[in-house]
Amino acid sequence: MASPLDPQTGLPVVAMIGGGQLSRMTQQAAIALGQSLRVLAGDATESAALVAADVVLGDHRELADLVRAADGATVVTFDHEHVPTEHLRALQDAGHRIAPGPAALVHAQDKLVLRRALREAGEPQPAWTRAERPDDVARFAADHGWPVVLKTPRGGYDGKGVFVVDDIAEATGLLERHGTLLVEERVEMVRELSAQVARSPFGQVAVWPVVETVQRDGVCAEVLAPAPDLPEALATSAQELAVRIADRLGVVGMLAVELFQTAGGVLVNELAMRPHNSGHWTIEGARTSQFEQHLRAVLDYPLGSTAMTAPVVVMANVLGGAATGEDWSGAPLDERIHHFMAHWPDVKLHWYGKGLRPGRKLGHVTALGDDLAEVRARAVAAARYLADGVVDDAFAFETEHRGA
Amino acid sequence: MASPLDPQTGLPVVAMIGGGQLSRMTQQAAIALGQSLRVLAGDATESAALVAADVVLGDHRELADLVRAADGATVVTFDHEHVPTEHLRALQDAGHRIAPGPAALVHAQDKLVLRRALREAGEPQPAWTRAERPDDVARFAADHGWPVVLKTPRGGYDGKGVFVVDDIAEATGLLERHGTLLVEERVEMVRELSAQVARSPFGQVAVWPVVETVQRDGVCAEVLAPAPDLPEALATSAQELAVRIADRLGVVGMLAVELFQTAGGVLVNELAMRPHNSGHWTIEGARTSQFEQHLRAVLDYPLGSTAMTAPVVVMANVLGGAATGEDWSGAPLDERIHHFMAHWPDVKLHWYGKGLRPGRKLGHVTALGDDLAEVRARAVAAARYLADGVVDDAFAFETEHRGA
Repeated sequence: MASPLDPQTGLPVVAMIGGGQLSRMTQQAAIALGQSLRVLAGDATESAALVAADVVLGDHRELADLVRAADGATVVTFDHEHVPTEHLRALQDAGHRIAPGPAALVHAQDKLVLRRALREAGEPQPAWTRAERPDDVARFAADHGWPVVLKTPRGGYDGKGVFVVDDIAEATGLLERHGTLLVEERVEMVRELSAQVARSPFGQVAVWPVVETVQRDGVCAEVLAPAPDLPEALATSAQELAVRIADRLGVVGMLAVELFQTAGGVLVNELAMRPHNSGHWTIEGARTSQFEQHLRAVLDYPLGSTAMTAPVVVMANVLGGAATGEDWSGAPLDERIHHFMAHWPDVKLHWYGKGLRPGRKLGHVTALGDDLAEVRARAVAAARYLADGVVDDAFAFETEHRGA
Repeated sequence: MASPLDPQTGLPVVAMIGGGQLSRMTQQAAIALGQSLRVLAGDATESAALVAADVVLGDHRELADLVRAADGATVVTFDHEHVPTEHLRALQDAGHRIAPGPAALVHAQDKLVLRRALREAGEPQPAWTRAERPDDVARFAADHGWPVVLKTPRGGYDGKGVFVVDDIAEATGLLERHGTLLVEERVEMVRELSAQVARSPFGQVAVWPVVETVQRDGVCAEVLAPAPDLPEALATSAQELAVRIADRLGVVGMLAVELFQTAGGVLVNELAMRPHNSGHWTIEGARTSQFEQHLRAVLDYPLGSTAMTAPVVVMANVLGGAATGEDWSGAPLDERIHHFMAHWPDVKLHWYGKGLRPGRKLGHVTALGDDLAEVRARAVAAARYLADGVVDDAFAFETEHRGA
């Protein structure tokens, strides 16, 4: 099948499976390239469905719905990892271009598949084993000590499906509930890093600076670009690791390699093969954003410059506060945005149009500058204010950190 | 009427009249603010209609169509000046918020109204008069010399409706064809400048650096930000002039004041009360783009920082070349974009999705850096390549200017 172009514009049509904020922000990048993203969304109120002209409503687990999204599209790509591999193979067999392809994508879908591939490649990762029975966990813990980390091989995100387990009773319960689990040593880490690359079918690779990701309760709260005080040799080796993985797995599109930094270097935690929360800073902070680069890569366009636009860039997620649910009694959202804009005229807002729920990623903000402490304080205070609508806290936090 | 918010997101809905590239780029800005632009377009294939989720098809000269676009919108704004004043008043009378309001907008719609208002305000402008008969032109030319400039008071853009006239016979023909005309002296100018400001109903004003606009055949070809070698006192006075005009006319939203720079200072050429070609550089080149700022202003949100993100920013329009029409025999558009991306990985593309026609504004590119000659050569070569698909010319041009 030749790659279809939009007859109206003469330009490609990228179909993205999933209607979340990643699709939403990819639509912004598509518009600049003369395109308009086609979005497969489960519901017309999903984040990307609210802003795309070409929305296919359907279920990403249903082949027929995927086919409707793929028909007439130049290439099919994803804003999440939840499309069944057999459907992707069926689409490929029908002549559709899928990026990343199912053989690559499975490494972001299944943590056991990833662990085996990294072992074969000799890449650094935590000690691990596959556990079907409590004995498997007990044997692993005898070698590596308690606690251990149990993970469901598939379907986890934002800390879901990850369990730090102190004894065999707890492990037994989890195995009964979930079946086969991945068991990992609990790594003594300094911090978490993310190395992002884009790779095109042609094999061109583009690499951004390695960033620090600050997690809170298993959810990304802040991203600091570049990772502060990261020795250059370690940064380079993390970038080279990401490039090796992208090449070896044949990734097409964005790849985020989530890393644990330890006393001895870095270990691979997991992969995402799509735009990723650790790269939202690139919208304003790099010459080419991860969203534009993902489009370029899946279309086999030449990749754009990844140069930073400022010495320091900090992204802070706006996570729905306890007070953002049904019983929210603070300032309405529109009023909070007014106050945010008045107080932080140079902090950039990205609001996803999603319903307010505690803990949900509702949006993010990005601050740029020269001084990490100042830039970080600004981003974090702004994000906290948007989440909670509490002025005093946010301002106190900001002041405290500005003074530091 | 209370200002409606979108029940789904709790955020405003801005309705923009007109489906061109200004609406298209405003949609990108709306997405970041948690919104989605409602677009009134004449046709589903218009630039913005291709990328907006909420498109009302209709005619901006029909009140009923305008009412459909305004219903449920928080505020109605414009990507062109062609909506009849009486319709805007009717919408206002029905309780809709219109920004800019009809009393302000008429100064961007009717050049005679603008000239009178500037005279009353004592602001600098070319000598002018209103001509109904050839005698009016002859008298003006006796005072100011030939050639004179005749302009249709309404409906002109991109050099259309502007005539440089050498004698009374030519003027007579134009008066017969067009009726009442504005007559202006032909100004001995150094160059053209543009001073952009945004103003909110609250009265907050934000000002960007004054830029130089380079015209070719009456159409904007390049914008240099900031205007090179502009004395600071003159830049400041041009900014103050733009602020005074915005305040005096009660502009809400973006205002571009197009200026002639002369030996003696600046003269006002004309106004645009919307995002404007002279501000496209702000998408990457300023902390807040004119598109985001227009949304903030019409919604009475606090305005964003206008700080530049690089010392020099150059925008170059991609104007359809002679070879881009039906008989185009060069590389197809998608292939040209490949080559563009390969050769200029750090130049940013904005493609409007419009049909290829000679002279039409098809897109623009933006380059950023430290050295004007280098940045300008990069932007211009990239834009020329995209327009013509001719590699040799563009590369030669680039090399020549890089050497300069």
